[in-house]
Amino acid sequence: MRTDFLAHLERWRKWNVQASMNAYASTTSTALNNCVHYALAGGGKRLRPILVAASCNTISGTTSPKAPATALELIHTYSLIHDDLPAMDDDDLRRGKPTLHKAFDEATAILVGDGLQARAFELIADAPDLSAEQKVRMIKVLAEASGFNGMVGGQYVDIQSTGKDLTLDELKAMHAMKTGALIRASVALGGIAAGATEEQLAALDRYAGHIGLAFQVVDDILDVEGDTATLGKTGGKDAEADKATYVKLLGLDGAKAEAARLLTEALAALDGFGESADMLRELGRYIVEREY
Amino acid sequence: MRTDFLAHLERWRKWNVQASMNAYASTTSTALNNCVHYALAGGGKRLRPILVAASCNTISGTTSPKAPATALELIHTYSLIHDDLPAMDDDDLRRGKPTLHKAFDEATAILVGDGLQARAFELIADAPDLSAEQKVRMIKVLAEASGFNGMVGGQYVDIQSTGKDLTLDELKAMHAMKTGALIRASVALGGIAAGATEEQLAALDRYAGHIGLAFQVVDDILDVEGDTATLGKTGGKDAEADKATYVKLLGLDGAKAEAARLLTEALAALDGFGESADMLRELGRYIVEREY
Repeated sequence: MRTDFLAHLERWRKWNVQASMNAYASTTSTALNNCVHYALAGGGKRLRPILVAASCNTISGTTSPKAPATALELIHTYSLIHDDLPAMDDDDLRRGKPTLHKAFDEATAILVGDGLQARAFELIADAPDLSAEQKVRMIKVLAEASGFNGMVGGQYVDIQSTGKDLTLDELKAMHAMKTGALIRASVALGGIAAGATEEQLAALDRYAGHIGLAFQVVDDILDVEGDTATLGKTGGKDAEADKATYVKLLGLDGAKAEAARLLTEALAALDGFGESADMLRELGRYIVEREY
Repeated sequence: MRTDFLAHLERWRKWNVQASMNAYASTTSTALNNCVHYALAGGGKRLRPILVAASCNTISGTTSPKAPATALELIHTYSLIHDDLPAMDDDDLRRGKPTLHKAFDEATAILVGDGLQARAFELIADAPDLSAEQKVRMIKVLAEASGFNGMVGGQYVDIQSTGKDLTLDELKAMHAMKTGALIRASVALGGIAAGATEEQLAALDRYAGHIGLAFQVVDDILDVEGDTATLGKTGGKDAEADKATYVKLLGLDGAKAEAARLLTEALAALDGFGESADMLRELGRYIVEREY
């Protein structure tokens, strides 16, 4: 099953890159196209689109919603581009390649990020095979999750708290916004695409909330344990930047125990679903057991 | 009529600032709220929301669509915040006050811009009194107009062409994207809110296309003729930055003649509408005759 799952994941990654690329074929400026393609060709885990598909599969037994899955990855990609800027996290490497502002320049990185966000909402508005009601709900969920009370707000709090001592609750609240909101939105969009009931959406959201936190706990563990080559970004950077992390607050073993606990909670939220939720279950295990 | 119109404009400005502010009362971070409120309290002409209302009024005789009008202003505000950044136009003053990155810092300015964009789409998705179909069409129009093939793409071309000689056609194409697309979107959203026919939307779009170009021609004229106090931004900056302008390509008199010609074309596009289009007609005259 694990091998099958990883092969499935790999197919998804390729499928999704291609979809994203195709969505950009119509950009009118050739020079700008080059920058956008560079940003999208970076690879990455493509976790959010896979969560959209797995969530949709849980409810309907199919993994069809290409537009919302791609939209999630576009929002995620734009956030990485802006977070890497010198005024923010100041990263030179992303996924083993120079970050966009290093490969081109800062103005280009700001603009490509801005354009990717607009394109994400356009993709959903333009999607075939979804009702207008489904699209409106998806756009509302995605905009909330990526805005001031979600991803953007979390990044703001993260930057503001560098060098400060955060409590565990403050750290959790920050990550719930910064990375958790978009992971929850991924699972919500898959459910909405599949016509999930409110009760089903609530169960999916409980799963996603726990997985989202686990994802960040594991990120903090990998930042300490991993090296730059495996991570494709500069390892040990969080400690260097004097940022609060789960490892700092809980210790390495404590952080690992917390990741395991969060996975158990996430899997329990799926108890009402049958085999159709196996992809979500595998993704949960993958998130906690991954090595990069 | 002119006095009435300016009083009307003033009421609209206040109405719209208030609407925007209210929409932000729920942002969870107090510190971030302060930055967002600073960005939105800057004032400005509020031209885009007024165009939404005037366009809606042309078709239905009412000026009701508060959500799309506010969304347009949020997108415009975010674009100014990002354009003012050191990596882009590097402006210290906007509407007579320090720009956001001067009042706070660059990271905050990038994030507030990002969050305002998300909130714009959220506002439309969340709007009362609009059908799901209307919302989806509005979001599609707004996302296209503000993205790679619109505002963002235009700003990219503008930055890339600093120091280069543009032809008049290239200059027009750049401005059609950079400022024209959002002005056309404003008029389109008003029409969609009012339930305009495709034929009516086409006439409104012809008006908006000409007004959008006229707006930029007048901006170039004011940049040469105005001083910093009247403009609320640094005057003469375009010439200093060696940017192509209408004044440079056509001369001052030629640019003024072009603005007048574009106004005539814009007004002609409204010939099929009665008195309900008077607000659009007044706005056209205001855009060409304004002094800041």
